[in-house]
Amino acid sequence: MNTKSYAPQNELNLRIAKIQSLLNAQNIDAMIICSNANIYYTFGLVFNGYVFIPRNGHVTYFCRRPVGLTGENITYIYKPEQIAEYVTGIESIALELDIIPYSTITRLAKVFPNATIANASAIMRAARAIKTDYEQQRLRESGIKHAMAYSHIPAQFKNGMTDLELQVEIERFSRLQGCIGQFRISGESMEMFMGNLLCGENADNPTPYDFAMGGAGLDPSLPVGCNGTTIKPGMAVMVDMNGNYTGYMTDMTRVFACGELSDIAIKAHNCSRRIAAELAAMGTPGTEAKALYNRAIEIVQEEGLEDYFMGHKQKAGFIGHGVGIEINEAPVIAPKSRDILQAGNAIALEPKFVIPHVGAVGIENTYIVTETGMESITNAPEEIINLI
Amino acid sequence: MNTKSYAPQNELNLRIAKIQSLLNAQNIDAMIICSNANIYYTFGLVFNGYVFIPRNGHVTYFCRRPVGLTGENITYIYKPEQIAEYVTGIESIALELDIIPYSTITRLAKVFPNATIANASAIMRAARAIKTDYEQQRLRESGIKHAMAYSHIPAQFKNGMTDLELQVEIERFSRLQGCIGQFRISGESMEMFMGNLLCGENADNPTPYDFAMGGAGLDPSLPVGCNGTTIKPGMAVMVDMNGNYTGYMTDMTRVFACGELSDIAIKAHNCSRRIAAELAAMGTPGTEAKALYNRAIEIVQEEGLEDYFMGHKQKAGFIGHGVGIEINEAPVIAPKSRDILQAGNAIALEPKFVIPHVGAVGIENTYIVTETGMESITNAPEEIINLI
Repeated sequence: MNTKSYAPQNELNLRIAKIQSLLNAQNIDAMIICSNANIYYTFGLVFNGYVFIPRNGHVTYFCRRPVGLTGENITYIYKPEQIAEYVTGIESIALELDIIPYSTITRLAKVFPNATIANASAIMRAARAIKTDYEQQRLRESGIKHAMAYSHIPAQFKNGMTDLELQVEIERFSRLQGCIGQFRISGESMEMFMGNLLCGENADNPTPYDFAMGGAGLDPSLPVGCNGTTIKPGMAVMVDMNGNYTGYMTDMTRVFACGELSDIAIKAHNCSRRIAAELAAMGTPGTEAKALYNRAIEIVQEEGLEDYFMGHKQKAGFIGHGVGIEINEAPVIAPKSRDILQAGNAIALEPKFVIPHVGAVGIENTYIVTETGMESITNAPEEIINLI
Repeated sequence: MNTKSYAPQNELNLRIAKIQSLLNAQNIDAMIICSNANIYYTFGLVFNGYVFIPRNGHVTYFCRRPVGLTGENITYIYKPEQIAEYVTGIESIALELDIIPYSTITRLAKVFPNATIANASAIMRAARAIKTDYEQQRLRESGIKHAMAYSHIPAQFKNGMTDLELQVEIERFSRLQGCIGQFRISGESMEMFMGNLLCGENADNPTPYDFAMGGAGLDPSLPVGCNGTTIKPGMAVMVDMNGNYTGYMTDMTRVFACGELSDIAIKAHNCSRRIAAELAAMGTPGTEAKALYNRAIEIVQEEGLEDYFMGHKQKAGFIGHGVGIEINEAPVIAPKSRDILQAGNAIALEPKFVIPHVGAVGIENTYIVTETGMESITNAPEEIINLI
């Protein structure tokens, strides 16, 4: 280990300044962060410990592990109570109430017995929703590699394969291209391994998770995704695999077909492309997230495809979501969302359909919100590609 | 979806009875569970919702998602406040304080405004530490497949491979054999993708995580495991990959060599085997977990290998841990552990060494604690296997 900061220091300074400005706006004295995703955001490397961010002045990284980190802002401790030796006069402290366990929060709160407790989760969600230039670059790199991995899928398909067998070949290729594999999700009730490949009727199996699509999975301990279905003529194969190549994840879906698909499946796929194109053009800074959602619903109703949109037996309540270090960041593109699009948001739009017996169709791209609309960073052909 | 319970009903009844007996012993009226691992334990399938377990009487599964679960104990709700409509007269309620976020716990606590709050985490940890016959069978199945995947490693190695390239081939083979991939860990500060393959000097890179071994990883967002090192003569290749084939994970490590290893590496590997054999014989019900740890340290000191044991630059504070639905269950084999071995514990012992410049050596097996000692369920040759 060395003193190198893994993101440039000026980049980390930008992020800290953004957080400090939010602390000042809410009149909160300081924040303590201990989730891996937020530690990575503020330090550029995951470590085990606590990041102390005062409303003004310099950050302190209180580290337990790994050994060997050096730098003037790094202080080694073995328990959080030691933070009190370094920090005094705090009257209000923001902690990650929405993600950190109750026991950890109450222990941290006791370190500041006279301070009121505020919620750091919402602040960090707001800060992370607007990607810096550096973060956008990380996302673009992931997008390029993600698209490249998908371009190899037709070459990996062999007649008679199961959904799992095809997924495993995509996993292998992605990993060899540098995919980190980790699929970081905020909130411990969401779980996924390396992405979701759905084919045929399995696409209509509902899951417990709040993902756009389902699948029965291989085992009741992880009931989502491929379930061993043999890929047969007439089936759509939806590929929504892990795009984490840089610590910043893109989200991307393409559909492959085993021979001819039904007319309704093709119509729904084209409808998804139409929705994506319209929403991308609409999505300038200042646009309400719910306006994007509502417009998608209008298009779906125009085309008479409501029964299949965002699921069939079970429907998802959103059509898009922010992405970055985690797969479920702000803003959320949903009917009751109060989010407003801002320049620098990274948003995955996934207007998808489940067609009974055929499978799932539709596309997903990751976009950066710019002054002229949403720019896709997962560029690859959007047609259904025939595998046979 | 159907009414099928994914573990047999009498199995689930056994587990619930065990939890109810612990609730009664602590004089707690009821428990509410909402973590995926504990929901899976009590229902046999992960769902999104809440499991309500009274100290006596029948469980209620309050489900949000997926749609379509049916059964007399299943009640659909869309928010936790609705539980109050079904449950009354609770004066004390156990919640998963050590794993569920602060905001969720405070919201759940308000559903029972007059109840005192107890900690369900410790109760569930105790219940899950003793595996039923059915759970032992799931673990044995994982162990057989886990060992089988390892037996193919020499055939996957090619000269000039990197650690990542070899790991990816093991990932692929494991997945095709049915490995679910999911590496469930209790506590959100621990992260790992599909296991850890360490070779050469990378084994001495410390990580932020509380795993036995380290590695720099591919990216600062997940600083653990292989880092792209080319496997060269004189290096040890330690394979500690995912053994989750059934929802119940075995943990298993074997060492491969690229040509001859140094004498000290071979000595340390043999010491690990000696420790494993001695501890397995010692580990009868009633044995103190810390006694196993202390005996391991004695053996290491006898052989003069302290500098390398459980890490070199950074050392782990334990030599073994319970396994099951999650990789870090009770009991913990550590110097300050207060755990006592019980028949039915599933324990991974991993007395390992990091030898500078060579890599990591030592073995890991998963054992079931029986009246006559610990029985290994990850059976495969324990020698260092030469790859070239």
